Amino acid sequence: MKLYQSDRAPNPRRVRVFMAEKGIDFNEIEIVDLDLVAAENLSEEYKRKNPLGGVPTLELDNGTCIAESMAISRYFEETHPEPPLMGTDAESKAIIEMWNRRMELNFLFPVAMAFRNISGAFADREKCSPEFGEISLERATKMFGFLNKHLANNEYIAGDSYSVADITALCTVDFARVVKLRIGEDQTHLKRWHDAVSARASAQA
Amino acid sequence: MKLYQSDRAPNPRRVRVFMAEKGIDFNEIEIVDLDLVAAENLSEEYKRKNPLGGVPTLELDNGTCIAESMAISRYFEETHPEPPLMGTDAESKAIIEMWNRRMELNFLFPVAMAFRNISGAFADREKCSPEFGEISLERATKMFGFLNKHLANNEYIAGDSYSVADITALCTVDFARVVKLRIGEDQTHLKRWHDAVSARASAQA
Repeated sequence: MKLYQSDRAPNPRRVRVFMAEKGIDFNEIEIVDLDLVAAENLSEEYKRKNPLGGVPTLELDNGTCIAESMAISRYFEETHPEPPLMGTDAESKAIIEMWNRRMELNFLFPVAMAFRNISGAFADREKCSPEFGEISLERATKMFGFLNKHLANNEYIAGDSYSVADITALCTVDFARVVKLRIGEDQTHLKRWHDAVSARASAQA
Repeated sequence: MKLYQSDRAPNPRRVRVFMAEKGIDFNEIEIVDLDLVAAENLSEEYKRKNPLGGVPTLELDNGTCIAESMAISRYFEETHPEPPLMGTDAESKAIIEMWNRRMELNFLFPVAMAFRNISGAFADREKCSPEFGEISLERATKMFGFLNKHLANNEYIAGDSYSVADITALCTVDFARVVKLRIGEDQTHLKRWHDAVSARASAQA
């Protein structure tokens, strides 16, 4: 099994943290680092594995390639059910999926859109709109406040248990430093949660 | 059980088509239509059910509210496993999730971003960037070509079987008319697929 990834991007980290929480031995998987700045993820060879060129991609021993962080995470959820990170019954699966998607659509994506459109880090391969970057930055900023309130009444993002939604939120908060967003001094609930999830061994993956 | 939704938006349609494919009786569910133009989805009452204000939201009889189309779909996948629309084993679940996400991130979202940022349909409640709208329109346009090629070798979006990825793609192609995108005369594979999925009874849901 091979994992094509990059150490600096937030999406591969989501998969690495997920795998660490599952207790998957990284030595059993060949890690292939791609240099995104050098556009190694857009080579013809890599695009045969993932035609849209994103990272990470998991290549199974039978040659099947699975792209998209959450598709890879779901593969590992099925092959390594314990501990469950995506719920255990219809209701908890739905609630965790809801919160994970909220963390993606309303938090990770605005942060990524702010970064890419303001910095122009990938302007050699995509059109940028600094105007939309600023709009995205404002949306991402608001989510820090939303999450602080939410975590006043919830131990974890999706409620009582650590889940994939915490992984997405953790990777987003940490990545947000690239657009100079940090947890505010007064956002004590968000800080309590961030300290707790950062203290787990998986956060180092 | 209550489904808060809107007939004109693409995301509630994804859930309705999913439910129809599952053979769920719409008479057993109370459908509550919200007028998005009148911002009924941003009322204090509705935001107690879904604080981020999107549609659809499914309210269970125990009061639990599930927002996000794919979280609601996952709930029904669990409670009504047949026919499976999200895969049956680790590999097929991952492949379908990958393709569904590609259809969302690279197709539905660019179409939605083009619509919202160019038309300013929700400019009373969100900042718009026509510049980013045009960038998104270009990305969405390219996906029609990508999908036409993909469907030359695949009967359905995720391979041999109809799945949730087809539902997302169908709702996106049909919604794309709002930004004047249509399947090209020469995109015969995409047209073959669109005719097939549109002919299913669920497409009318």
